[in-house]
This record gives sequence, C-alpha cells and structure tokens, in this order.
Amino acid sequence: MGKICLGIDIGGTTIKIGLVTKDGDLQGKWEIHTDKSENGKNILSDIANKVTLILQEKNLSKDDVIGIGLGVPGPVDDAGNVLGCVNLGWGEFNVADELSKITGLKVKAGNDANVAALGEMWQGGATGRQDVVMLTLGTGVGGGVIVGGKVLGGINGAAGELGHFTMKIGPDAEKCGCGKKGCLETLASATGIVRETNKYLSRVDTPSSLRKIDNISAKNIFDEAKEGDKIAIDMVEQLGEYLGLACSYIAATTNPETFVIGGGVSKAGNILLDVIRKHFRENAFHALKNTGFSLATLGNDAGMIGAAKLIIE
Amino acid sequence: MGKICLGIDIGGTTIKIGLVTKDGDLQGKWEIHTDKSENGKNILSDIANKVTLILQEKNLSKDDVIGIGLGVPGPVDDAGNVLGCVNLGWGEFNVADELSKITGLKVKAGNDANVAALGEMWQGGATGRQDVVMLTLGTGVGGGVIVGGKVLGGINGAAGELGHFTMKIGPDAEKCGCGKKGCLETLASATGIVRETNKYLSRVDTPSSLRKIDNISAKNIFDEAKEGDKIAIDMVEQLGEYLGLACSYIAATTNPETFVIGGGVSKAGNILLDVIRKHFRENAFHALKNTGFSLATLGNDAGMIGAAKLIIE
Repeated sequence: MGKICLGIDIGGTTIKIGLVTKDGDLQGKWEIHTDKSENGKNILSDIANKVTLILQEKNLSKDDVIGIGLGVPGPVDDAGNVLGCVNLGWGEFNVADELSKITGLKVKAGNDANVAALGEMWQGGATGRQDVVMLTLGTGVGGGVIVGGKVLGGINGAAGELGHFTMKIGPDAEKCGCGKKGCLETLASATGIVRETNKYLSRVDTPSSLRKIDNISAKNIFDEAKEGDKIAIDMVEQLGEYLGLACSYIAATTNPETFVIGGGVSKAGNILLDVIRKHFRENAFHALKNTGFSLATLGNDAGMIGAAKLIIE
Repeated sequence: MGKICLGIDIGGTTIKIGLVTKDGDLQGKWEIHTDKSENGKNILSDIANKVTLILQEKNLSKDDVIGIGLGVPGPVDDAGNVLGCVNLGWGEFNVADELSKITGLKVKAGNDANVAALGEMWQGGATGRQDVVMLTLGTGVGGGVIVGGKVLGGINGAAGELGHFTMKIGPDAEKCGCGKKGCLETLASATGIVRETNKYLSRVDTPSSLRKIDNISAKNIFDEAKEGDKIAIDMVEQLGEYLGLACSYIAATTNPETFVIGGGVSKAGNILLDVIRKHFRENAFHALKNTGFSLATLGNDAGMIGAAKLIIE
C-alpha cells in the first residue's frame, strides 16, 4: 500500500513536481522546463525521467507511491482525455493512460485551474469546505468549481471556464485569447486590469499618481488605490463590478459555500476581496448574499497539492 | 418492497399529486387547492388526507408505496429543510420529516424547478442525458441544474436560481419580485416579455401589428414575429440575447450536455430555441458552443414525475 503521491502541475514554462503525503503535506518540490518543441511530445517522458530520479533521491520504491495526479492547462475529461492544450502544442489523447504506461504508476489527470481549486479546498483558503469556487486572476483568468468535494468537470471538461464569461459587449470590448470579445479575462486578468487602466488614463485628464509610473502593473494600481488615488480607486471599483457580477452568476448556478480568489492579482489582499464582495452582494439573490470570499493561500503550490488530491480520492 | 411512488408538486394555487411507477410512468393524477391561509399550516395535512384517499381508490396499501417525492416552491436543502416559501407563507422547517410523520411514508423534498428539471431528464426533453440545465419561462423564471443525474442543490438549496441573474443594469432595469433589479426574470418571464414590448412600443413610432392588440400576451409577440412584424422580431431577438448570454454563463460554470427550455413561454417552439441558440453561440467559450437546446415535453406533469424520481434515486 502506497504512502505518498506525486502531484504534478504542467505549465507553459515549467512543470512542477511535488511529493505529497496522504494528509496533504508537501514534502518536497522540483521543477523542470516545459519542452514545447515538436508539439510537446517530450513532456511526458521528461516527467517520467524526473519522477524516477526523485524516487531514487528519496529512497522510495514504486510500491511506496499511491500514484500521480496531473494538472494540465486545458480541458480534460474524467477518463483523462485531453481535448487539446494550445499552450503545450498537444492535440487530443489520453494523458493519464499515456503517463501511466511509461511510469508504471496509476495516474489521474484534471484541468490545472480545477486542480488548484482542489488544492485550496484541501489545504488552503477553503480548508474544510466541500462546495468551493476558485477564481485565479493571473496572466489569464482561470476557474475551478468544486461540488461536494469533487471537481465539476462537465460533459467535456469545460466546466469552470469562468474567465470566458462575456462581461463587456460593444465596440469597447477587447479581443480575448479564446477568440471571443469582452471575456472576464480581458478585464480581470493582470494584463486586463493594466490595459483598462491605460485606456482610462488616456481618455480622461484627471490627475493621478499612476501617470508618473512607466509600465504600470496591476500591483501599482492596487497600491495607488490604497493611497487614495482617484483613478486607481475607480479602476479597482470597476474590477470589483465585473468580478462581483460574475460571481453572482456562478453562485446562482451552483450555490457554493465560498469563493477563493487566487493568482498574482490576489496578492492585493483584502482591498480586492472587499470590492468583489460589495458588488457580489449588490447582484446576488437574497439566499446567496452570505456566500464567503477568501484569499488563496497556497500560491504556486496549489496545483501540486490539488493534483495529489486527485489520486487520493 | 414498494412498487409505486407519489410525486407531489406544491404550487401557489394548486397541489398536483401523481402516482408514478418506478419506470416513470404517470398512472394517475389529482389536484387539490393550495390552502395558504394561516401561513399554509394546512397544506401538509391536506396532502396526507388526499394521499390516503388516492391509495384507497387505487386499492394500494402503504407497503406498495416506495415513498413520496415533494416539489416545493422555494429553496430546500438535501435534508429536506425548507428555508422559507414566500408563496405559501411557510418559514423554516423540515418539510420532509413533517410529511413523513403524518403519512408514515418515506419523503424526500426538493425545489420545484429542480424537480421539474429531474422530470424532464428522466422522461421528457432531455431523456438519457445526465448533465442538464432546465430553464422554466413562466410567470417567473425558474432553473434547475442537474449534474451526473442528480439535482445540484448547493450549500443552502439556492443552486439553480437562474431567474435571478442580474442581466440589466441602469435606470431602465425593472424591479424583480426578489427585491433586486434587472433580473433575468424581469426580462424573460411571460410578464417580463410583455412589459418590455409595451415599453418599446411606447418609445418608438414604428408601425406594428402588435399595436392593434389589446392586452398583448407573450404568445401574441411570438405569433407576430413569425408573421414578420418588425417590432415583434426585435423583441424576440432581445429575449434571445438575454437568455443566450445567461445560458453561456451557466455553460461555462457547469458545462451541461443540454439545456431544456420549459414553461408557458416555451410553447413558442423552435423560434425561441433558435434565437437562444444563436446568441448562446455568440457568447459561449469554444468548447461549449455545441451544447444542446431542446424544448420541455412534460408540461405541467414535469414536477410530479421529477418529484417521484427524487424518491426512487
């Protein structure tokens, strides 16, 4: 009987591999480069080689390992079929079966945002909850929906694509990487917040401390809002409107106990939670107004820990 | 071992009671008046009395009955706790336990819209599917979300409150019965469609066959749109925009196989499905564009049949 899991989070730049106990304790972590050449055909063998080295380093045999949980940046169905990962160059194939074949270990796979949500539920910002929705505000906007402690995958692995809610319609809506316009991701990702702010600064004459900063970042905007800058406050308010409204739609659909907000943008802290909660409550059905909001706490480890949880279930 | 179920659908005016086989065959149906006097305190005893009469009439003993499934017009949690039914005058109590005590039968309760969705999944417009979202466009707009063949209730029974998505913001947003403004229900219920049309007719001078009709109904609007009336077509288009956009949010959250559209408004038929599908596809994330849309087929029987399914599960 195994005693430890491997939780693996495949990203577009690096692959994170964690050794995770049954209790969710991250006992070690490693990183390898994501080789996207030749449509990412080396990714799984690179992972298998690294896993072999890690087990050797830790004096573990394959019998000690419960299995591998894998987070993949794209839709994955319950059987482990990847339905195309644009970032990695992957088409359609069964990633769980494939990795299991070359490692000799049991493998379960899930979408990376869903897996991060599972990690936060298990060991992070939503510990002890079973009905959780996570929104990851980073370069893009990812989502993970957990119902009764299980990731909701949907009929073709596209549940939780919360970054692709159309939140802005009209000529001012920006094109999203997904091909649509006005997605939440174009408004609430780190890049989206910055773009919206630059657009606003060029449209109005209002003085702002932001005008003195070259290459404004999302962090600058929150920092200046905390200092009382009018434009920065308006932009944080606008961000809260989009996110609060989107969360009200999600809550009226699945009625979670709590939302967890993660990703780089969430480092802004309570100013972000407060503004999302305020606009959420304005738009939420009365029975949903007390839905919780908390910050993610696992940072970049959420994917590894959540992936391990996939295999423990 | 029981062989038959009672499926009961409590509405604000009548209570529908059906005798349903394990295979979902509705073998008989009865109606009693909903006595809302004294905060609806007689409702459960009225049901118990009628159930006794029905069993006598059909020569059935209590041993023949698997149990009672109950659809209630308000949020109900998995344990059978009603969290307030404004329409009936009910506060918070365990309706399943209460009805079980006075009938001596096993009882399971669910929200009426969720239960109708279960009925359509089992025997109606989504037969054979396991991941289904139903939207009921009637006097109000109700919703039911089914995941893996089970109703998604949420942490306090308010999952599937799809009629209360805020879809219109600003001075033109109408007040909803729930206390908010601009809910989908104010735009896509039978009364909402009519109100929006009357507002539009009074705002513009465009000639329209609708101007000759006293007390325009939702049916008139669809009928005139089918005949080519410009204003009626615009109103159907606007309805499709709101519903298509709302469905795109739901799909990006739970990724169902199909949407089922029911309620009085759905009698408009394919013209309604087509316009919803068109706007859904404009707004849906690429992996979700092929989500199905179908019409409900059970009409007013969906609640009884779905309630019976609650107890069979």
